Amino acid sequence: MNVLITGAAGFLGRRLVHALTTARRLIGPDGAPLAIDEIRLLDTVPADIPDDARIRVVTGDLSDPAVVEPLVDDRTAAVFHLAAVVSGGAEADFELGMRVNLDGTRLLLDACRTRARCPRFVFASSVAVYGGELPSVVTDATRLTPQSSYGTQKAIGELLVNDYTRRGFVDGRALRLPTISVRPGRPNLALSSFASGIIREPLNGEDAICPVAPDTVLWLLSPAAVIDCFIHAHNLDGAALGSDRSIILPGVSVSVADMVAALERAAGPEVAARVKWQRDPHVERVASTWPGRLDDSRARRLGFPADGSFDAIVRQYIDSLGR
Amino acid sequence: MNVLITGAAGFLGRRLVHALTTARRLIGPDGAPLAIDEIRLLDTVPADIPDDARIRVVTGDLSDPAVVEPLVDDRTAAVFHLAAVVSGGAEADFELGMRVNLDGTRLLLDACRTRARCPRFVFASSVAVYGGELPSVVTDATRLTPQSSYGTQKAIGELLVNDYTRRGFVDGRALRLPTISVRPGRPNLALSSFASGIIREPLNGEDAICPVAPDTVLWLLSPAAVIDCFIHAHNLDGAALGSDRSIILPGVSVSVADMVAALERAAGPEVAARVKWQRDPHVERVASTWPGRLDDSRARRLGFPADGSFDAIVRQYIDSLGR
Repeated sequence: MNVLITGAAGFLGRRLVHALTTARRLIGPDGAPLAIDEIRLLDTVPADIPDDARIRVVTGDLSDPAVVEPLVDDRTAAVFHLAAVVSGGAEADFELGMRVNLDGTRLLLDACRTRARCPRFVFASSVAVYGGELPSVVTDATRLTPQSSYGTQKAIGELLVNDYTRRGFVDGRALRLPTISVRPGRPNLALSSFASGIIREPLNGEDAICPVAPDTVLWLLSPAAVIDCFIHAHNLDGAALGSDRSIILPGVSVSVADMVAALERAAGPEVAARVKWQRDPHVERVASTWPGRLDDSRARRLGFPADGSFDAIVRQYIDSLGR
Repeated sequence: MNVLITGAAGFLGRRLVHALTTARRLIGPDGAPLAIDEIRLLDTVPADIPDDARIRVVTGDLSDPAVVEPLVDDRTAAVFHLAAVVSGGAEADFELGMRVNLDGTRLLLDACRTRARCPRFVFASSVAVYGGELPSVVTDATRLTPQSSYGTQKAIGELLVNDYTRRGFVDGRALRLPTISVRPGRPNLALSSFASGIIREPLNGEDAICPVAPDTVLWLLSPAAVIDCFIHAHNLDGAALGSDRSIILPGVSVSVADMVAALERAAGPEVAARVKWQRDPHVERVASTWPGRLDDSRARRLGFPADGSFDAIVRQYIDSLGR
């Protein structure tokens, strides 16, 4: 059997590859661990290659049929579709976002559709599918009203995953990812980049700008937990999911002020003081449409892992620094 | 200015063309009647040509860029996008449905996107965007959970119309059409075809099979009212619609038993007795996921026309027969 991971050179992709080539196992439809002959990694830039003979790296564009079609064959048992142009990128370059986030997702689903096997297909969606005037708690019944092209493209991806699943083309699982915090490295084009920056930069001795008001409530998940969620989503029996293959992942609901308070508890007031409050109307306008509190009870019932608190998320990040 | 109508040879398209070339006027963004130089009609089969020098008929495939792109230019003020592969057709031929209902809609939106003018874009969506376990009354806040490929493609079209509107590429209005009854002519591939057949065939002296249980509740709109709705949707000021461009059209909620009772009131027991009750599990399974009752208060507040009752709909059909 083979496994495909798109966006494999990205922050989450690299961690997923690491997990699958070390401690973590994928479970097949028969309930037994999947015997993996090959792990195919797609990204636009060469992915890091862990020391594992099963890895095959493909560098190319997700929206290019000549790249995507050969990635899936009759032995493809699992697809983790993480590749995307992020929110800020899809807003800045509409055509690029449509091509990668919509056409690319469809190409990949169609590559699965035309094969003998019906692979388990884990799709990284996002809470950006929500927006506008939302109820105080977003639930599984809440309508998807994205207020960005990225959110629109993710909502379309969810609809496709559900229909392709209903028709038996894939065995899909569309996960609505919370904002991931704390991401290591540098800021990215995502409008939610500050949700990591206000913890990461101060711990690195740098100032960080918080572009939203202190009482802005975010819905967060740690890098470690989201990787566990990807693997758990794959390993679930499709029957447990029923016909609705879109899942609100578990998250922590926390205000930006409380995030900085958690940083202060973990690293002291001097570090927390490196967060500078400088509101950016553009970021603030978009962030005000993100849901801050979601009903994640379905995911919890399905056994998806969760973070205990934002303090635990900050500790996880500090531990990862190896200090 | 010019106006484009896709699906112009279809049942609703022909009526819309007739209305626009006779009594009905389109209102432009300035509040004045639109001066129409040309009415472009697209369909896969040649559309009937009313006696109007402004009409230009294009016969071609909506999913062919060479056909679609020249249909929109800098003087296109209004697009009525009615063309679609219907529910049964999109379920039977998945690729055809995706190509016409998804790729075609996107081609048309992109043709508008790349022009100087931002046309009013009226998109015929459907209550097929709903499905599965629904609340007793479907509202504007109800999540779209289509249970057919047709419904999925319409839901995607709505998301695109909303995002293209948000970005200023079109001034969109996506109308969730009820099942249209009574359609004249012959049965079609739509799974809801019986909703017209059980009235039309008995009035034509023929037996009609009702494939669902008598207590099945449908959400219906008459052919005359839906044409009025298309024109009203176009003529509304975008500001009145706000950011949510998807609109539940007004409808009549009626059980199949009550539809046949209305037929009996209008045409007598002998005619009504021509309805044969013969349940079809496939149609019944799909029909059971259609919403029977929707909150159409937003459309009514916006002044969309509605039918008074199913009795009025039956009378409208009988009158149209000219008997």
